[in-house]
Amino acid sequence: MPDQITISVDAMGGDSGPSVSVAGCALALQRLPDTRFLLVGDQAKIMPELAKFPELQKKSDVIHTDIAVGMDDKPSQALRRGRRVSSMWMALNAVADGRAGFAISAGNTGALMAMARFALKMMPNVSRPAIAGIWPTLRGESIVLDMGATIGVDSRWLVDFAVMGEAMARALFGIERPSVGLLNIGVEEVKGLDEVKAAHQRLRDSNLPMRYVGFVEGDDIGQGTVDVVVTEGFSGNIALKTAEGTAKQFAAYLRSAMNETILSRLGYLLARSAFKSLKEKMDPRRSNGGVFLGLNGIVIKSHGGTDNEGFAAAVALGYEMASNKLLEKISTDLDLHRANEIEMAESSNEEEKPSQ
Amino acid sequence: MPDQITISVDAMGGDSGPSVSVAGCALALQRLPDTRFLLVGDQAKIMPELAKFPELQKKSDVIHTDIAVGMDDKPSQALRRGRRVSSMWMALNAVADGRAGFAISAGNTGALMAMARFALKMMPNVSRPAIAGIWPTLRGESIVLDMGATIGVDSRWLVDFAVMGEAMARALFGIERPSVGLLNIGVEEVKGLDEVKAAHQRLRDSNLPMRYVGFVEGDDIGQGTVDVVVTEGFSGNIALKTAEGTAKQFAAYLRSAMNETILSRLGYLLARSAFKSLKEKMDPRRSNGGVFLGLNGIVIKSHGGTDNEGFAAAVALGYEMASNKLLEKISTDLDLHRANEIEMAESSNEEEKPSQ
Repeated sequence: MPDQITISVDAMGGDSGPSVSVAGCALALQRLPDTRFLLVGDQAKIMPELAKFPELQKKSDVIHTDIAVGMDDKPSQALRRGRRVSSMWMALNAVADGRAGFAISAGNTGALMAMARFALKMMPNVSRPAIAGIWPTLRGESIVLDMGATIGVDSRWLVDFAVMGEAMARALFGIERPSVGLLNIGVEEVKGLDEVKAAHQRLRDSNLPMRYVGFVEGDDIGQGTVDVVVTEGFSGNIALKTAEGTAKQFAAYLRSAMNETILSRLGYLLARSAFKSLKEKMDPRRSNGGVFLGLNGIVIKSHGGTDNEGFAAAVALGYEMASNKLLEKISTDLDLHRANEIEMAESSNEEEKPSQ
Repeated sequence: MPDQITISVDAMGGDSGPSVSVAGCALALQRLPDTRFLLVGDQAKIMPELAKFPELQKKSDVIHTDIAVGMDDKPSQALRRGRRVSSMWMALNAVADGRAGFAISAGNTGALMAMARFALKMMPNVSRPAIAGIWPTLRGESIVLDMGATIGVDSRWLVDFAVMGEAMARALFGIERPSVGLLNIGVEEVKGLDEVKAAHQRLRDSNLPMRYVGFVEGDDIGQGTVDVVVTEGFSGNIALKTAEGTAKQFAAYLRSAMNETILSRLGYLLARSAFKSLKEKMDPRRSNGGVFLGLNGIVIKSHGGTDNEGFAAAVALGYEMASNKLLEKISTDLDLHRANEIEMAESSNEEEKPSQ
């Protein structure tokens, strides 16, 4: 049994603020009884919501601040105005000083990442942060990272993402050696792919607790070919949004097809339970929550437009990460990997000696 | 009425070679009677296929060569072995010397692009080539480029892609001022996006025959928010493949849901025609065919695994491009754009003078 975990919540984040975040925490508490909550934000707005959930009230402390980061604030603005004083910052700070096991916010991604880097600092040995998302697949779920924290291709960054991703897969899925693939395109010998190939080489030679399967392509993500898909942030974000768009498109086609004729409408009525289970399978709330990786603390970004159910799912994701000691796993594996790379560099130097 | 168009066909390309390419041309001829065909490849394999289609035979010349580029050949290998002598090269060469209005191949993309650059050369004023694809959307179809020819973000390349994309949209959709969007991610102030922002600025100031709407995100592609979506090749290819994967995933969920219970199976039977129309809407053959842009000639890449229907669709795409004078449109618009950029640079220099 893990110890009780305290969760610090930026209650003001997201399109709906406390009305979703407080209700989401109440739902999460039902499913995760050994949790406590630090609800950070405007007391006048939090208290009425909290009053609706007596169980949550018993297990929560409210930390008041008037200042909230806006959904459209640029990261630099958010830092200027909100550092030390905003609900977002104060929620992160509770993780920094050990009062909370993780922080969660539905606030804007850029601001949250910028503040998290300030409040928590980067882990030693990690070159760049990443946002990892959960992707529903035909085989269950996969982890895809980076979703938009770090733009541009550099082999060291990609290798760091792979290490953090496999550690997260072990923590979340409980697999001893998760499979890891590097996202690539099926065109050989194009300039600009050199860094992806260099990362491929380094992962092939690694001693990490994972099964590196090599390159995968965009259509492998949804098929669940690997547990962890690694790519840089621009293409990762585009892949995520494109998949969301395609799912919406399919749903719209299906709706219009089922309304086409009287027979198809009748067929729809008969198969209603099947359509309901299809809808549940495609429900984006189930996979809500991005995990910020590479920082000295766990931060969960919930979708800004999600509801109670989605927010509760993001809380549960953070709970899994914290109770399964994600940060220790990442740190151990990074050390392992660095030692291996140094050893390999030394042995290749020795091999070269005779020819000198 | 456009003049008769001659189409040079790399008959050996693709997973199935002449059995698909020849049958595909026969299908295309039924729909486009004012075409002629140069079928390039192994006569011994082409002739038996051609004999099945007497109408096509009347309108075709067969150009024999023993040498074909393999589906797994690297571009450099393909060039070394296949330059001047392979069916792929000879099909491209017919465009270079004016015997054909466009070339089509289902051979491997990397080799085809490498050979096309050699055989046709880049257009003056174009910095990098692009592959444009047709994307089925909720509003009809959009053009997405680049799909994998040019990796890496450079504002000049992105602007060139926008010019070529709007010209293609005018040729294909017959819209006077197609809407154009630049693919971006919803995170502000991240390093690595400077080139995307620079391209945004340049497109906003342009005098091109298009309606530039600014940034779009991945989920806008399937919604059909704009007629033309511009991005660099890595993310474009990943977006395409991810959408394909998501569509397959949805189809698999739907199949299994409709088999869940007796009622859902009955519902499926009643709504069969609706499911058939849904399947047609999602049929990837309808949007088969990538257009190589930036070269002194039109080249169409058909999917390697497509069938007659898909190959015929790719032929029809090339026909539209050639008969609507795509190259002239691109060339005119590039000149227009260059002149505008020079003028703007000069006027901004003049504005700066007083402060010197």
